[in-house]
Amino acid sequence: MSNIRAAIIGYGNLGKSVEQVIASQPDIDLVGVFSRRESLDTSAPVIPIADIEKHTDNIDVLYLCLGSATDMPEQAANLAKLYNTVDTYDNHNEIPRHRAEMDAAAKESGHVAVISTGWDPGMFSLNRVYADAVMTDNDQHTFWGPGLSQGHSDALRRIDGVKKAVQYTIPAEDALDKARTRQGEGITGKNAHLRQCWIVAEDGADLEAIENSIRTMPDYFVGYEVEVNFITDEVFDAEHTGMPHGGHVVTAGKIGDTQHLIEYTLKLERNPDFTAGAMVAYGRAAHRLAQAGETGARTVLEIAPYLIHPASLDDLVAKSV
Amino acid sequence: MSNIRAAIIGYGNLGKSVEQVIASQPDIDLVGVFSRRESLDTSAPVIPIADIEKHTDNIDVLYLCLGSATDMPEQAANLAKLYNTVDTYDNHNEIPRHRAEMDAAAKESGHVAVISTGWDPGMFSLNRVYADAVMTDNDQHTFWGPGLSQGHSDALRRIDGVKKAVQYTIPAEDALDKARTRQGEGITGKNAHLRQCWIVAEDGADLEAIENSIRTMPDYFVGYEVEVNFITDEVFDAEHTGMPHGGHVVTAGKIGDTQHLIEYTLKLERNPDFTAGAMVAYGRAAHRLAQAGETGARTVLEIAPYLIHPASLDDLVAKSV
Repeated sequence: MSNIRAAIIGYGNLGKSVEQVIASQPDIDLVGVFSRRESLDTSAPVIPIADIEKHTDNIDVLYLCLGSATDMPEQAANLAKLYNTVDTYDNHNEIPRHRAEMDAAAKESGHVAVISTGWDPGMFSLNRVYADAVMTDNDQHTFWGPGLSQGHSDALRRIDGVKKAVQYTIPAEDALDKARTRQGEGITGKNAHLRQCWIVAEDGADLEAIENSIRTMPDYFVGYEVEVNFITDEVFDAEHTGMPHGGHVVTAGKIGDTQHLIEYTLKLERNPDFTAGAMVAYGRAAHRLAQAGETGARTVLEIAPYLIHPASLDDLVAKSV
Repeated sequence: MSNIRAAIIGYGNLGKSVEQVIASQPDIDLVGVFSRRESLDTSAPVIPIADIEKHTDNIDVLYLCLGSATDMPEQAANLAKLYNTVDTYDNHNEIPRHRAEMDAAAKESGHVAVISTGWDPGMFSLNRVYADAVMTDNDQHTFWGPGLSQGHSDALRRIDGVKKAVQYTIPAEDALDKARTRQGEGITGKNAHLRQCWIVAEDGADLEAIENSIRTMPDYFVGYEVEVNFITDEVFDAEHTGMPHGGHVVTAGKIGDTQHLIEYTLKLERNPDFTAGAMVAYGRAAHRLAQAGETGARTVLEIAPYLIHPASLDDLVAKSV
């Protein structure tokens, strides 16, 4: 069987990770990276985005490494008209709309568009659905972190006097314990997570004013348990430039007359790397489903697990079932 | 949409749990329980096993609640010729053979046979494959327990002077920690699990001889860390008549240049109840795949997750992705 021929569009953190993941797969080859820029810091062929329509014969799957905020809504459906695609669209409320648009574009053109892969949405979605199906009488809670929140870090950096900043979201241990014993009534995103801030202030900045700005910032920090730490440039550079993340899907409930707990945990050293791992695996499914004559959009819920693994089904049954 | 019409064959612990789980499902009705006995302790209709061929028109899926040791190999393929089936066949080494037999029987007769559901095989199999696909460079370890081991408890009860006995398999904490940080090289089933025995001895029995028999029993206890506890009848009846189980699938590895951990944990108050929860959910898939015209055997690896959930795909995408 010949290898799957893949391409990437978008070369930020996710695109770079996808490139790295593809390089370690036995059955996927990278054809190139589509970019507006003439050169990228990559040894892969860089293909001008203007030529996006010229490679439909030699690319089996296109990884859409674009931002969910604006690039995806503008470009994804058009790309699904040209290629089998995989994306990590993560605006949860808008996923049904995205799915409908991708489904129409992919069906019309005879492609498969695998949408909203990654870990949340993605692996967490799978675990929410499996657990809820197996134990229909349950309370289910998702916890995020310990992990870097990009949006909240950006919000901190917009405050006067802040030079560098990161914000970690950390699940509250007591809320986790309550969820595990099905005593999680009243747990909300707000009271189940601590927001931990690490700030390098400008020289002479008013630290009290910065802290006050944080604690009174609506939506982002008001109502949360907030911890503010001022640190030096050196400490920041040494300890706070990573992108850790992870979390838990906790499902506690009853089957028959007895109590059960299902918990799925991720501890990720670097968020975009793990997201890329999931995304690249779902590229196999996009290609295999298209090969089998299927068309349209597919969420991770619609894809049989073996379709994302490089091994044959027979080998998987023998080794892992 | 009309409800799925289900039946059960085999009315031991698993069959009874399946009956209870079906009663709590919105979309599955129990038609009856096939049994050799004339009456069972159930309010469901009891159907003589001699009439197994007479109900093919009014049963959509048959839950095979039979033992993996002898009943399944003898009866399962014949049942798959008559009905869509779901089983929990758990003899891991023999699953490829079971799959081939069920596939032939189900294909020949136009049915779907979902095999080896439950939690291991079953939910653990799914997690092993998902984790291995998303993070191809990994070390994966499965830990069982804390949980009751039926086979080992039976072995204890065969020892002279033993009146009652249970054996719990307990994962070794240090092995779990090593697996989570990818330092699990050298971890085996033996050194990763403690075997904890709770024994009620006959009056006047030689406790030292019993303990010695345990510690020198090949396959079952030799090579394991073994803990032997003698207790009274009263303590046994109060604390050791449940069937708890569970475990962990721990996958630690590398994506790109960074380290990641995926861990799936089950804590089950009563093993057959949870197994039944998974089994019943996969009955939906058997019925839905058969409705769609598919035939043959399917492992959990081949079944798209949404097919086991009572909600519609659209609702699942909106709520859980």
